[in-house]
Amino acid sequence: MTQQLLFTNDVAAHIQAVANDIKPNSTFILADDNTARCVLPELQSASALLARSTVITIPSGDISKNLESLAHVWKMLGDNGGTRSSLLINIGGGVITDLGAFAASTFKRGIPFINVPTTLLAAVDASVGGKTGINFNGLKNEIGVFNEAPFVIISTSFFKTLPAEEIRSGYAEMIKHALLTSDAEFEALTSRPADHHTPQELLTLLQRSVEVKRHIVTTDPTEKGPRRALNLGHTAGHAFETMAMGRRRPIPHGYAVAYGLIVTLILSHTILGLSTAPLYRLAGYISNNYGAFPITCYDYPQLLELMGHDKKNERTDRINFTLLRAIGSYECGVTVPAEEITAALDIYRDLLHL
Amino acid sequence: MTQQLLFTNDVAAHIQAVANDIKPNSTFILADDNTARCVLPELQSASALLARSTVITIPSGDISKNLESLAHVWKMLGDNGGTRSSLLINIGGGVITDLGAFAASTFKRGIPFINVPTTLLAAVDASVGGKTGINFNGLKNEIGVFNEAPFVIISTSFFKTLPAEEIRSGYAEMIKHALLTSDAEFEALTSRPADHHTPQELLTLLQRSVEVKRHIVTTDPTEKGPRRALNLGHTAGHAFETMAMGRRRPIPHGYAVAYGLIVTLILSHTILGLSTAPLYRLAGYISNNYGAFPITCYDYPQLLELMGHDKKNERTDRINFTLLRAIGSYECGVTVPAEEITAALDIYRDLLHL
Repeated sequence: MTQQLLFTNDVAAHIQAVANDIKPNSTFILADDNTARCVLPELQSASALLARSTVITIPSGDISKNLESLAHVWKMLGDNGGTRSSLLINIGGGVITDLGAFAASTFKRGIPFINVPTTLLAAVDASVGGKTGINFNGLKNEIGVFNEAPFVIISTSFFKTLPAEEIRSGYAEMIKHALLTSDAEFEALTSRPADHHTPQELLTLLQRSVEVKRHIVTTDPTEKGPRRALNLGHTAGHAFETMAMGRRRPIPHGYAVAYGLIVTLILSHTILGLSTAPLYRLAGYISNNYGAFPITCYDYPQLLELMGHDKKNERTDRINFTLLRAIGSYECGVTVPAEEITAALDIYRDLLHL
Repeated sequence: MTQQLLFTNDVAAHIQAVANDIKPNSTFILADDNTARCVLPELQSASALLARSTVITIPSGDISKNLESLAHVWKMLGDNGGTRSSLLINIGGGVITDLGAFAASTFKRGIPFINVPTTLLAAVDASVGGKTGINFNGLKNEIGVFNEAPFVIISTSFFKTLPAEEIRSGYAEMIKHALLTSDAEFEALTSRPADHHTPQELLTLLQRSVEVKRHIVTTDPTEKGPRRALNLGHTAGHAFETMAMGRRRPIPHGYAVAYGLIVTLILSHTILGLSTAPLYRLAGYISNNYGAFPITCYDYPQLLELMGHDKKNERTDRINFTLLRAIGSYECGVTVPAEEITAALDIYRDLLHL
């Protein structure tokens, strides 16, 4: 089945249209308690279908992305008349779309579902690509399936109340997609701060960005080949993210990706000959909008260790990166020696004045 | 990926060959405690790969087909170095192949697995067809995914220690497949009791039988259309099975299917004009080998109620059957009025001298 990606600022009407199309015999909404309180009432007042749906809530936060919440969703579906012809509507951030999509993919061996991301990060990253799942046994996304959401409804109307930091976090993933696409797209995104676009401009940029991801995912749904392109910036980014957590000063995922993209473009220059212009442009933009993740040379051994353990890395004794020859031209699985990474971290500190 | 179905009496060598092919970086075996004690030692002494695999066990019986066992399998995989390139080998009956296949389908969003059924019922029914899952919230197979096992290794060598009742239970599903295929196949199966075939003869019959199921499943992996043919005998069969449970005198699944097939052939005669010859042949064979499920006319209302609630039935106010016009020629979703079913139950009692 082909995925339907709908970009709109009238979410209730589009949910209704999807439901008219698939004619579920019962409808469920999954949301976290914040979203249930702040977002649902308006949607429900605009749609009789949503008003009469069974609402399933879980506590907000990544801590809820666990087996206990999943079992709660399964039980609520079963106890409230869920069948193979029921519809689950996941309204929320990445936790809700990942967990809800996994619940729907496994309840009675699969029921239809709609993802309605309410954060920019979930819109650009989590709601498309088919990665569903939960954290388990202390590991992120340890359990799940690949199952593309049959319907995704993306709207910037949810973003108006998001903190600027959350907008920037999602925007970093859009910059990543732009780097995989074209100079023009990269320049469009880095021409102004994330929160200086009108909702309509942002929706247009977002639409192109999500299409980039969908195009790559379509060619490689289970992440065995070209999909690793989407890992751009993440090998170093995850290392920064984990280090920040270890320092008990966690940073948003997108910020970690932003810093990781700088390291990646430095390596792309030194190893694959990427020109310096996009590197300087990116470093300036990130520095102005995201600040810097502070590191010294004493942090290098731990960062190298963390990069070696990234789950996309097949062997822990070599570190693989997705790198760019030019904007829009990427190479996956480039093995980079430790000393090149160390040199790149030196340049990262120079560029960000650390 | 095309499924590899291997029929052999040298299981260890075939597992080794599959492993040589996919080169897992670690190997796990899932078995119930009975199988681990009685079957594994011989296999492990014949294969270095199996001898050095991590063995995960769960208690035997359908009661173990639950979320707790599933979480145990996930945790054992994670705690013992399981990665996306690990291999899980499920050795056992339907509980093990269903639960193990679901665990493998969801651990790190999917790892390769081999099903090695050790009962005839699992060989002919559970190990092929992609139905994975667990019982949950009091319902059978409430949670799971459709995911065809990439490798199935079928051997009659495991059956020599099975009780005759277990052999007959699986054999009833083979008779069902034969009825969907040809007169010749139906006659081959009903020419002698299930346990009067040599292992080699049984393997040949089993191979043809499993191919029937695979052929039907391939055309309809998620059970929306022709796959309902495999439901032949099951609408009435499940009703008998549930009634037997209610009487606290449970009968094996295949026995319930055997009795259900008689009701189905009666309805096929009265509604679609199936000739009486296969009906009499089947009733005689079942009566001689499986006895009869005892019912009186006072049981009819409950049986009709149970048939209406069969989960393959889309609406509870009409009862749908898969019926035969002739052997090998089936029709799915035939709505049958209650009075026709009542009449068929009368004939069932006549044929089985009840």
